[in-house]
Amino acid sequence: MSIADLLSTEPTVVTVGTPLLADALAAQGVAYEPVEWAPPPPGAEADLAALAAVPGRAAADRTAFERMAAVHPHLVGVTVASEAVGIGRHQLLHAGPPLTWDRASGPMRGGIIAALLYEGWADTPEEAEHVAATSLELSPCHHHHAVGPMAGIVSPSMPMWVLEDRDGRKAHCTLNEGLGKVLRYGAYEPSVIERLRWMEAELAPALTAALAQSGPIDVRAIIANMLAMGDEGHNRNRAATSMLFRALAPAMVRSGLPSDQVADALTFIDSNDHFFLNVGMPAGKLIGDAAEGIEGSGVVTAMARNGTDFGIRVSGTGDRWFTAPANVPDGLLLAGFTPEDANPDIGDSAITETVGLGGFAMATAPAIVQLVGGDTAYAMAATRLMYEITVGEHPTYTVPALGFRGLPTGIDVTRVVRTGEPPIINTGMAGKVAGTGQVGAGLVRPPMEIFVEATAALAALTTGTPS
Amino acid sequence: MSIADLLSTEPTVVTVGTPLLADALAAQGVAYEPVEWAPPPPGAEADLAALAAVPGRAAADRTAFERMAAVHPHLVGVTVASEAVGIGRHQLLHAGPPLTWDRASGPMRGGIIAALLYEGWADTPEEAEHVAATSLELSPCHHHHAVGPMAGIVSPSMPMWVLEDRDGRKAHCTLNEGLGKVLRYGAYEPSVIERLRWMEAELAPALTAALAQSGPIDVRAIIANMLAMGDEGHNRNRAATSMLFRALAPAMVRSGLPSDQVADALTFIDSNDHFFLNVGMPAGKLIGDAAEGIEGSGVVTAMARNGTDFGIRVSGTGDRWFTAPANVPDGLLLAGFTPEDANPDIGDSAITETVGLGGFAMATAPAIVQLVGGDTAYAMAATRLMYEITVGEHPTYTVPALGFRGLPTGIDVTRVVRTGEPPIINTGMAGKVAGTGQVGAGLVRPPMEIFVEATAALAALTTGTPS
Repeated sequence: MSIADLLSTEPTVVTVGTPLLADALAAQGVAYEPVEWAPPPPGAEADLAALAAVPGRAAADRTAFERMAAVHPHLVGVTVASEAVGIGRHQLLHAGPPLTWDRASGPMRGGIIAALLYEGWADTPEEAEHVAATSLELSPCHHHHAVGPMAGIVSPSMPMWVLEDRDGRKAHCTLNEGLGKVLRYGAYEPSVIERLRWMEAELAPALTAALAQSGPIDVRAIIANMLAMGDEGHNRNRAATSMLFRALAPAMVRSGLPSDQVADALTFIDSNDHFFLNVGMPAGKLIGDAAEGIEGSGVVTAMARNGTDFGIRVSGTGDRWFTAPANVPDGLLLAGFTPEDANPDIGDSAITETVGLGGFAMATAPAIVQLVGGDTAYAMAATRLMYEITVGEHPTYTVPALGFRGLPTGIDVTRVVRTGEPPIINTGMAGKVAGTGQVGAGLVRPPMEIFVEATAALAALTTGTPS
Repeated sequence: MSIADLLSTEPTVVTVGTPLLADALAAQGVAYEPVEWAPPPPGAEADLAALAAVPGRAAADRTAFERMAAVHPHLVGVTVASEAVGIGRHQLLHAGPPLTWDRASGPMRGGIIAALLYEGWADTPEEAEHVAATSLELSPCHHHHAVGPMAGIVSPSMPMWVLEDRDGRKAHCTLNEGLGKVLRYGAYEPSVIERLRWMEAELAPALTAALAQSGPIDVRAIIANMLAMGDEGHNRNRAATSMLFRALAPAMVRSGLPSDQVADALTFIDSNDHFFLNVGMPAGKLIGDAAEGIEGSGVVTAMARNGTDFGIRVSGTGDRWFTAPANVPDGLLLAGFTPEDANPDIGDSAITETVGLGGFAMATAPAIVQLVGGDTAYAMAATRLMYEITVGEHPTYTVPALGFRGLPTGIDVTRVVRTGEPPIINTGMAGKVAGTGQVGAGLVRPPMEIFVEATAALAALTTGTPS
């Protein structure tokens, strides 16, 4: 950055350490970037120093970033989960790191109950709880080339989007159910099950027919465009849903399906501005997966929550999950709910932040603050802050409001530990009692300790010292 | 503004008068707001002083603003121009203030030729020119509750959108033809005429059927939403087009029309991100008209260009047009064209700026600079500057990037004269040779003298002194 560049950019107050200055600024409504700096824990300091001395560390992170930036996902079809992710009777996928029924939170249990009723593996919620506790096999979506929002439950009969990168890698996600009482927020009343059956019988064939007619849909182009249209890709997907709708509608009409089925499918999509989320998430999965397994890289390849634990995976440490208890998001609640009603953070949707979208892209979507809280200055500051913990700026996904700067992409665990700044995540909030549904939306930051732990593991692997 | 507020907003360099400081800042890439201040022309100074002494002047402008802010347009139907605007054989409407064939520019002549061929009033361009020169009646769209983009030609057989305010007032506009060789940019080759005939025979009935099924579409809601989605409503209408598409598509499918016709109509709309412009413009017309005829108000109710002259109408001076030769826009040219190929400013689309959209809303659409030139800082500065010449901030149309501040609305001619800042207009650029079509898009500012003249006329009317 040249001296002249300093003059042309907005000055920002950076606050460090104790919150005295930050509190004063906040009281005056001044935008600031808090660097909550504290000396890293003694062990972390040694790990950071050890990693800093490793030749090729920066190159490894750069490789991870470049592989992520090169991903070009297309939406190629809709298929049934049993085929897409290879699950059968009494097998379900769920969001987040590995989990057992006994540790599952309310909304996760609610989602599991809904899936068991939908599959006919139980006739009542009580029976479903018994099956879940005794004879159900649970596995993370992330272990099956898939991701799922909120509870993220996938059962064998559910239709799933199929996304493909140009190298043939695939990722999958169920179809978005809309808002209100829905499985992913832990609701399992009859209307939830009916909707899932309609999606299987009517919506999925309509989408399949439309995609057969339209050919693959370029998801990278939709993501690049949504960022100039007020979406950050996690809690705002209105523009992307609109573009997907525009791509699908004429093709669906031409498919020859009965016009009632076409109209019902289009009305369903139009009624739900989050419909694209379940396409953006597997696009993120393809991007995160692209960075897996690079020796010495501290780039995060997945962030995911199961409603109990927050977990991350890191490029240089392979399949291992680093987990800690998930925090409760802070945000705006729907009428009738209080903060006590909110479950801890849940869902694979933090794959969007993993790849530079969502909370990292808040500057593209200042209107998001009306949903998750905060103000416009905070939205700008959030994106600016995330540059501090990421490896690069995405070449295609840019922020018009920041002079077309690329999104902060490739979270490096060592930068997170060094700055003391965990990622900023936009998220929906589920009710903590099974069956409640959505209670709000807000912001959350993962527990710092998982980044410290991942840094230690990376140092141990890379330098040969025991973790 | 309190002292604390000063700290929370981005500091801006304001340059006044001679361009020495401004040039130095521009060379360093620094955003600045040039106040091209010069003493108003001697007459204007006296008029400003006289008007400033008139009791009720501020209240009159406030009334104009409030009437504009209260307008709530709905899209209610599509009808044929002969009914909508009452024109018949050898009568055409055109964009801008009154114009005769002998003074018409190339693109205006091209558009007229296209309309004569389309109506069958001439069989060849040469014959059309003869008819136009000898037996054609031209009248401004603005005199017939209508507006038209670029050449803005309306002929009796063309389908027109019908918009209605809650008080029953109506405004009309033809349907957008798409990009490339089109009538509104002055092209008249056979493909242009064929498309117009297809729009009449196939598209308009499909839209009519969809609207009959959907009921009136709330255009105020679409405009409010587009501003959070990167559209400024003049040169960017992608989000609004998407929302209109979403509203129309399921209804069109349910209408019972043949699926080929529905699919072709949807494909046509989807292929043209400007499709909404011809809905936003008559919405603007309803808003501008709402402020007409308020004694003592200097609020501009229409800005329009016919390709030769730029004209404005002012609330307190009624139907009178204040005109001067139109400037040539400055912007980005399509491949193969040079600035010499561009016609002077043309079209009624500056009705968008008249009501706070377009160039006034550039801060909502920083990506617009990729189309019209400039940079993100300029987009922000443009909207900020327009607050200096407007009466109020729109209560519903807000700018997320500026902390949800309302759009600058209600241009006051006295503020324009006092600050020396004419409105900033985003616009398409037509080729100056008839038949060329679009050559680019850019920015333009109307000639200052029409605001000086309008101020003088307002002073004469309001204070009883001769103008």
